Amino acid sequence: MVSAPRSQTWQVRSQQAVSYEIVETRGLLDPRNDALLAVPGGGRAAGTRLVVLDHSIDALYGTRIRNYFAHHDAAVEYLTIRGAEENKNIEQVMQVADKLNEIGTHRLSSPPLVIGGGVVADVVGLAASLYRRGIPYVRVPTTLLAQVDVSVAAKTGINYGGYRNRLGSYSPPPRTLIDREFLATVPERELRNGMGEIFKMALIKDRRLFELLETYGAALISSRFQDPAAGDDGVEGVAGEIADEVIGRAIAGMAGELEPNLWEKNLERSVDYGHSFSPLVEMRAIPELLHGEAVAMDCVFSAVIAANRELIRAEDLRRIVAAARRLGLAPSHPLFCDTDLVLEALEDTVRHRDGRQNLPMLTGIGEVCFLNDVTEVEIKQACDAMADLLDGPRDAASPVSAAGAQR
Amino acid sequence: MVSAPRSQTWQVRSQQAVSYEIVETRGLLDPRNDALLAVPGGGRAAGTRLVVLDHSIDALYGTRIRNYFAHHDAAVEYLTIRGAEENKNIEQVMQVADKLNEIGTHRLSSPPLVIGGGVVADVVGLAASLYRRGIPYVRVPTTLLAQVDVSVAAKTGINYGGYRNRLGSYSPPPRTLIDREFLATVPERELRNGMGEIFKMALIKDRRLFELLETYGAALISSRFQDPAAGDDGVEGVAGEIADEVIGRAIAGMAGELEPNLWEKNLERSVDYGHSFSPLVEMRAIPELLHGEAVAMDCVFSAVIAANRELIRAEDLRRIVAAARRLGLAPSHPLFCDTDLVLEALEDTVRHRDGRQNLPMLTGIGEVCFLNDVTEVEIKQACDAMADLLDGPRDAASPVSAAGAQR
Ligand SMILES: NC(=O)c1ccc[n+]([C@@H]2O[C@H](COP(=O)([O-])OP(=O)(O)OC[C@H]3O[C@@H](n4cnc5c(N)ncnc54)[C@H](O)[C@@H]3O)[C@@H](O)[C@H]2O)c1
Ligand SMILES: NC(=O)c1ccc[n+]([C@@H]2O[C@H](COP(=O)([O-])OP(=O)(O)OC[C@H]3O[C@@H](n4cnc5c(N)ncnc54)[C@H](O)[C@@H]3O)[C@@H](O)[C@H]2O)c1
Ligand SMILES: [Zn+2]
Ligand SMILES: [Zn+2]
Repeated sequence: MVSAPRSQTWQVRSQQAVSYEIVETRGLLDPRNDALLAVPGGGRAAGTRLVVLDHSIDALYGTRIRNYFAHHDAAVEYLTIRGAEENKNIEQVMQVADKLNEIGTHRLSSPPLVIGGGVVADVVGLAASLYRRGIPYVRVPTTLLAQVDVSVAAKTGINYGGYRNRLGSYSPPPRTLIDREFLATVPERELRNGMGEIFKMALIKDRRLFELLETYGAALISSRFQDPAAGDDGVEGVAGEIADEVIGRAIAGMAGELEPNLWEKNLERSVDYGHSFSPLVEMRAIPELLHGEAVAMDCVFSAVIAANRELIRAEDLRRIVAAARRLGLAPSHPLFCDTDLVLEALEDTVRHRDGRQNLPMLTGIGEVCFLNDVTEVEIKQACDAMADLLDGPRDAASPVSAAGAQR
Repeated sequence: MVSAPRSQTWQVRSQQAVSYEIVETRGLLDPRNDALLAVPGGGRAAGTRLVVLDHSIDALYGTRIRNYFAHHDAAVEYLTIRGAEENKNIEQVMQVADKLNEIGTHRLSSPPLVIGGGVVADVVGLAASLYRRGIPYVRVPTTLLAQVDVSVAAKTGINYGGYRNRLGSYSPPPRTLIDREFLATVPERELRNGMGEIFKMALIKDRRLFELLETYGAALISSRFQDPAAGDDGVEGVAGEIADEVIGRAIAGMAGELEPNLWEKNLERSVDYGHSFSPLVEMRAIPELLHGEAVAMDCVFSAVIAANRELIRAEDLRRIVAAARRLGLAPSHPLFCDTDLVLEALEDTVRHRDGRQNLPMLTGIGEVCFLNDVTEVEIKQACDAMADLLDGPRDAASPVSAAGAQR
């Protein structure tokens, strides 16, 4: 083979520095708190800012939000779009783009705000990353899942062609604001859903967080992560510090994993734990399964493989399953017993990891390794074990039945 | 104002290194040239690669391209999409995404190829940048404009809501391959269009390139940048070295401007010369005006402002207008005489430059400064001057009439 005759070659080499912050605040919608007005980089906005609201947020907090901006005479326009996975699509992205066009959004100094769950955050994040090839935006996550996981993420995305997050970008907002008071109105099932991601984080790197979940997880859910009312003796509620610690450890854990690998050049990512088999299962089960519910099942599924390989003890597996149930997260689902489907999910994950399995696997609670030689037989065995977990006994502390029955 | 009470704050800081190359080659479709098979990063592709063809390329080179890959037993699938500005839209992006899904494109090792003009390069570039949040791709620009300008670009984009490139990304392909043999079939008007961008580059930083255009520009167009046939005494043709030098200087000039400012953090960009007023004019005139035609007009328009301010001599302005005409590029158009439209264009450009004009202005041929105080009166005067240039005398060397009359 004669190789290509080359005449001239030009090289372009460049470095991009990216930095962003996640800021915890309280009373975000109190007019005395100016966090929502500040523009990342300093100063106040020039021109009109777009404020995108999740439809539930609009229903629950719309008046307070409008009062907030009216109080400050801020030039804003509102757009309400729908949360929930089935709405994470290109049409909603284009709706945001239309509105950005309509109000004449600037390149830098009128950053849109998005207030809502992970779905609207991902949709607005993608729209902002495309608009003028990328404008800054400010993210206010309002579900537990969004506060502990999406909050730290650089990624945006939408579902496409039957695949989760098939289209998207890496474009973190310079600032994300977190106020756990929003969790007061989050439906219990959505809180458990968020627990799915915290559960994952605990399993891969934070044994203390796992123990906090075992001890306080159920109570955090029933108190919706809110401070106990004054005079509450703490029997029902959980101290606010515990809520802060759980959220904080989850965020810090995620930030630590992302920082050295923001663009995922390294395809061995421990935070992919719980995300190897679940994406396709989740897409097939829309709207039955929520993301965190599917993630928790994948955590269990992977732990079963680890236990079968004796990477973890049978006792650890039992503890993991019990913890999931205590959080009101079903450890299994019929789709996880379907070997063909799970193998198909693995196949797409392998393509996503560029031809390698790179399966994060527990070697203990809070420790992880990577496998590249998981066989079809092992998948089949794990699927069989998942069938046994389908109707297993519920933990007494768990107030709920299997996830699928919640709607 | 009580400022936001803060509890915890987390910071994520990261650096992304980007590097890509533009490689000149000859005989790209000759099976002995392996440039089309090589995967950036080394080795051969794993899995099936998508080859996206511009419809004109498919018509003219489709058989040779298919023979090339068949000869090498390469696993490829083809998708033909339409060039031309009116097809630079989200629908074509989704068509590419559908096909990437259909063939099961990997994260890294089956980079799609795009062979065609700037429109399909921008469409496929955007699709690749979104697919799995970014996969590598290989770009083969086949028009003059795409070879000298798109070839170096990190940007992708589509038109949206009546605005040029309103949605897009920064995602350069790791490798761009250039073969000027493709120019043999490019329609003359499209070659002049490409000359518009070379003209811009010459004006802002390369006086030698400007002189090459004055001397050889018309002949390069009529010989379509091809080497003179053997035995040709050079009266008609232009030596291949001149074609290489013109293309090479344009590419090198662009690469030099982009490298320190790839993500356009600095909104004072001399390569924006010719791109301040033209975007809206171009969109309003689709399909009458091509990009490079509108850019050349904007170059003249801006030079008029510079001459009126005495930043350049009247003699320079005359020379610039004459050079444009010699390249077959009309210096003016009725839309450039419409003060309201030009002001609206400037308004959107100011939003794009985040509230500043940052207007690149010539201080001589090959030299540029930035202005932020251009007034409505100056715009009006320039519009009036453009009216005088509308039906000005044609240069004898220019074989064509005004651009608008070409279709
Ligand atoms: N970008 C990333 O890296 C990343 C990371 C993790 C998850 N995600 C994505 O996040 C999405 C899941 O996020 P989610 O769980 O927040 O789902 P969601 O956005 O659909 O929100 C869940 C529901 O809660 C409602 N809601 C939101 N805030 C509320 C509040 N304060 N009170 C009452 N109701 C409220 C919403 O309207 C919705 O119906 C998935 O699409 C997932 O892919 C993205
Ligand atoms: N990404 C960037 O930074 C960047 C830079 C400059 C321009 N652009 C974009 O490039 C586009 C213009 O590119 P273009 O001028 O190549 O337009 P184009 O892609 O529409 O091509 C022009 C015409 O030539 C045909 N064609 C392509 N190659 C041919 C060949 N070898 N022989 C015969 N016909 C051929 C095409 O089918 C089309 O009809 C604009 O949309 C512009 O925004 C992008
Ligand atoms: Zn997740
Ligand atoms: Zn251009």
